[in-house]
Amino acid sequence: MTDFNASRVTDLLSRLREKAPRVHCITNTVAQTFTANVLLALGAVPSMTIAPEEVEAFAAGADSLLINLGTLDDTRREAIPKALAAGRAAGRPIVIDPVFVNRSPVRCAFARALLANARPNLLRANADELAALFPGEDIADIAERTGTTLAVTGETDKVAGPEGHFALRNGHPMLARVTATGCAGGAVMAAFLAVEANPVTAAAAALSTFNIAGEIAAERSRGPGSLVPEFLDALHLIDGQHIADRLRFG
Amino acid sequence: MTDFNASRVTDLLSRLREKAPRVHCITNTVAQTFTANVLLALGAVPSMTIAPEEVEAFAAGADSLLINLGTLDDTRREAIPKALAAGRAAGRPIVIDPVFVNRSPVRCAFARALLANARPNLLRANADELAALFPGEDIADIAERTGTTLAVTGETDKVAGPEGHFALRNGHPMLARVTATGCAGGAVMAAFLAVEANPVTAAAAALSTFNIAGEIAAERSRGPGSLVPEFLDALHLIDGQHIADRLRFG
Amino acid sequence: MTDFNASRVTDLLSRLREKAPRVHCITNTVAQTFTANVLLALGAVPSMTIAPEEVEAFAAGADSLLINLGTLDDTRREAIPKALAAGRAAGRPIVIDPVFVNRSPVRCAFARALLANARPNLLRANADELAALFPGEDIADIAERTGTTLAVTGETDKVAGPEGHFALRNGHPMLARVTATGCAGGAVMAAFLAVEANPVTAAAAALSTFNIAGEIAAERSRGPGSLVPEFLDALHLIDGQHIADRLRFG
Repeated sequence: MTDFNASRVTDLLSRLREKAPRVHCITNTVAQTFTANVLLALGAVPSMTIAPEEVEAFAAGADSLLINLGTLDDTRREAIPKALAAGRAAGRPIVIDPVFVNRSPVRCAFARALLANARPNLLRANADELAALFPGEDIADIAERTGTTLAVTGETDKVAGPEGHFALRNGHPMLARVTATGCAGGAVMAAFLAVEANPVTAAAAALSTFNIAGEIAAERSRGPGSLVPEFLDALHLIDGQHIADRLRFG
Repeated sequence: MTDFNASRVTDLLSRLREKAPRVHCITNTVAQTFTANVLLALGAVPSMTIAPEEVEAFAAGADSLLINLGTLDDTRREAIPKALAAGRAAGRPIVIDPVFVNRSPVRCAFARALLANARPNLLRANADELAALFPGEDIADIAERTGTTLAVTGETDKVAGPEGHFALRNGHPMLARVTATGCAGGAVMAAFLAVEANPVTAAAAALSTFNIAGEIAAERSRGPGSLVPEFLDALHLIDGQHIADRLRFG
Repeated sequence: MTDFNASRVTDLLSRLREKAPRVHCITNTVAQTFTANVLLALGAVPSMTIAPEEVEAFAAGADSLLINLGTLDDTRREAIPKALAAGRAAGRPIVIDPVFVNRSPVRCAFARALLANARPNLLRANADELAALFPGEDIADIAERTGTTLAVTGETDKVAGPEGHFALRNGHPMLARVTATGCAGGAVMAAFLAVEANPVTAAAAALSTFNIAGEIAAERSRGPGSLVPEFLDALHLIDGQHIADRLRFG
C-alpha cells in the first residue's frame, strides 16, 4: 500500500467535504441516529429510508450505499435486495456490514446469500463475524478468493484487498463503550468510497479518520457519555495536522 | 402580523410550560429520540406510538398531533390515517411534515392524498419538498388556495397563512449538521399549537423559540456534537430576555 | 431487607462489571439507543434484535432479558413470546416493563396475558401503569398474590417482593426531562439480575445505582441536554464511595 499515507487521507477528507456525498444507509434501528450524525459531522449527507416501495429511488440517487444487517426485520429483508440492485445498476459503491452473524444462524445464511449476489465493494466485519461467514479462512485468503475488500475491525484494524493487506493502529478502547460506533464506521467507509474508487484506500482512510477523531475525543472526555459529543465535534474539526500527527499503520 | 413580537412568543412559551401539552408524534425512526428530548426540554410531553391498534387512543388523548413522513413503512401507512381521523374527531391541531417527498414519487403521492383528506392546521416543509408537492406555485398562493398555513424552513424561514406571510430570521447553520433538527422543529410547532389556535402565530413562535435556542447553543459549542446537549439545555433555559434580545422577523 | 446496604450495592456493581452480562432487550424504538448506551456505560453488553426468526437465539444466549412494551408493533408482538419462552427455557431472568398500559386498552390486555404466562422475575412500572394492570390493588398485595417482585418508580421508588417492601429515595427530577430514562432503568435491573438471583435486591441495587448516577449528573449539568453525557459518564465512573455517601432507602 505505497500510496497510503497522511496526505492521502487528508486529500480524501477534503474531497469528501467538498462533494458532501449522500450515503444511503439501510441500518439497524439502534445505530440510525448516531450514524446520521456521524455522516453529518464528517460532511456527508445521510438518508435512511427502508420502505421497499421507496428504497430504489433513494439508493439510485445516492452516491454510495451502506447495508447493515443489525436489524433484520421483514421490511429490511425486502428492501435490501432492491436497494442493492438499484444501487449496483446506478454504479454506486456498496458496503455490507453483517452485524452479529455469529449470533444468529438465520442472519448468517441471509448474509452469505447477500454476499454471493451483491458482491459489495467492501465487507466490514469484526473477527467473530468474519469467522462465522468464512469458517477457518484467513482474511487475506478470503479477499483473494472472493475479490472483495475486507475491513476487519478490532484492537488493530485490518484492511485486505486482492493486492494485499495491512494494519491500522489508531483508535481508543472507550469507543467500544458507545453503541453503534462500529456501525457508524461502516457508513464512514461508504462516504469515502464516494470519493475514492480503490476500496482498500477508501476503507483505510475512513478507519483512520474515524479512529483519530476517536482518540482526540477520548482525550477530551471523562467517559462514554461525553465521548459522543466530543467525537462528533472531532469529526467536524479534524484536519491534516491531526492526521499527520497521529496516523499509525503498517 | 401585528400581534407577533417577543412578548407574544414569551407568553406562549409560558403557557406551553404551564400546560405541558402531550404531543403525539408519528415520526421517523431517526428523529424519534431527539424529537422526544426536544419536547421534554421545552416542557411538553411526547408520545410516539405507531401501532395501528393503539394509535387512535393515543392521538385522541393528546393535545396535538405531528405526522412526519420520514419513515413510511407499512405500519405507519396504516397508522397515519387512523391517528389523523381520531385526532381530528377530538379537535386536536395537526402538523404534517412531508419529509423527502422530493426524493420519492411514492411518498409524494401519499403526501398529496393525505393533505387533501386531512387538511392539517400546519404544513411544515423545506423549499424542495414544497416544490414537489405544489410545482410552480408560490408559498403565498398555496396558503391562500388551500387554506393551510405553511411553515417553510430554510436559511430564512417563512410562515404563510390565509391572511399573509412573513419571514423569520433566527437560527444557525450548525443546526443543519445535526440530524432531525427540522423534524423536531415540527414537533415544537405542534406543541405551540396546543396553546395557540392561530397557526401562523403558533408556527412563528415555535420557529423563533427553536432557532433562538439554536443560536445560544451554537455560541456555546465547538461543533455538531456539543451542539446537541447545549441546544436541549438552551430550550430548557430560554426565557423572555433571550427572546427579546434576539428575535428577528419581518 | 436487612441485607440491603451500600456495600451490597457496591459488591453487585463490581460483579456486574466483572461479568459484563449480555442483556437482550426487546424495547421501544425511542429507548433503544439510550438503553444500549446505558448498559455499555454500566459495564454490560446490550443486544436488541427483534426479528422473530432470530430472537430465540439471542434470548437464549443472553444473561438476562428485558421486555419493554413501549413499541408494540406486529414484529414485537410475534417476537416477545418467542423471546420469553427461549429465555425461560434457558433459565434467564426476565424483566417486563409495561410502558403506557394506562393509555392503551389493547396494550393493557396484551400485558396482562403476558404477565400471566411469562411470570417475570421483575415487573417494572410507574403508579399509573400498575393501577391499569391491577386496579384497586396495593403494591404489597400484588407482590404477595402474584409472587412477582415489583419495582414501582416515581418520586420515591418502591420495591416489593413476597417477603416485604421498602422505599428507595435517590434520584433527581431532571431525569424525567430526558426520554427513556425509565426504560433504560428497566435494562439496568435486568443487568443486575444477571449477577443477583434475589429480584428485590437486584431491583433495589439497580435503582440505587441508576439514581445516584442521576444525582451526580444533575449536579454537573445545566439542563436535560448536558444531563445525558454526564449521566453516562457517571454510570461509568460510579464507585463504592459515591454509593456509600449517597444511598438513601427505607
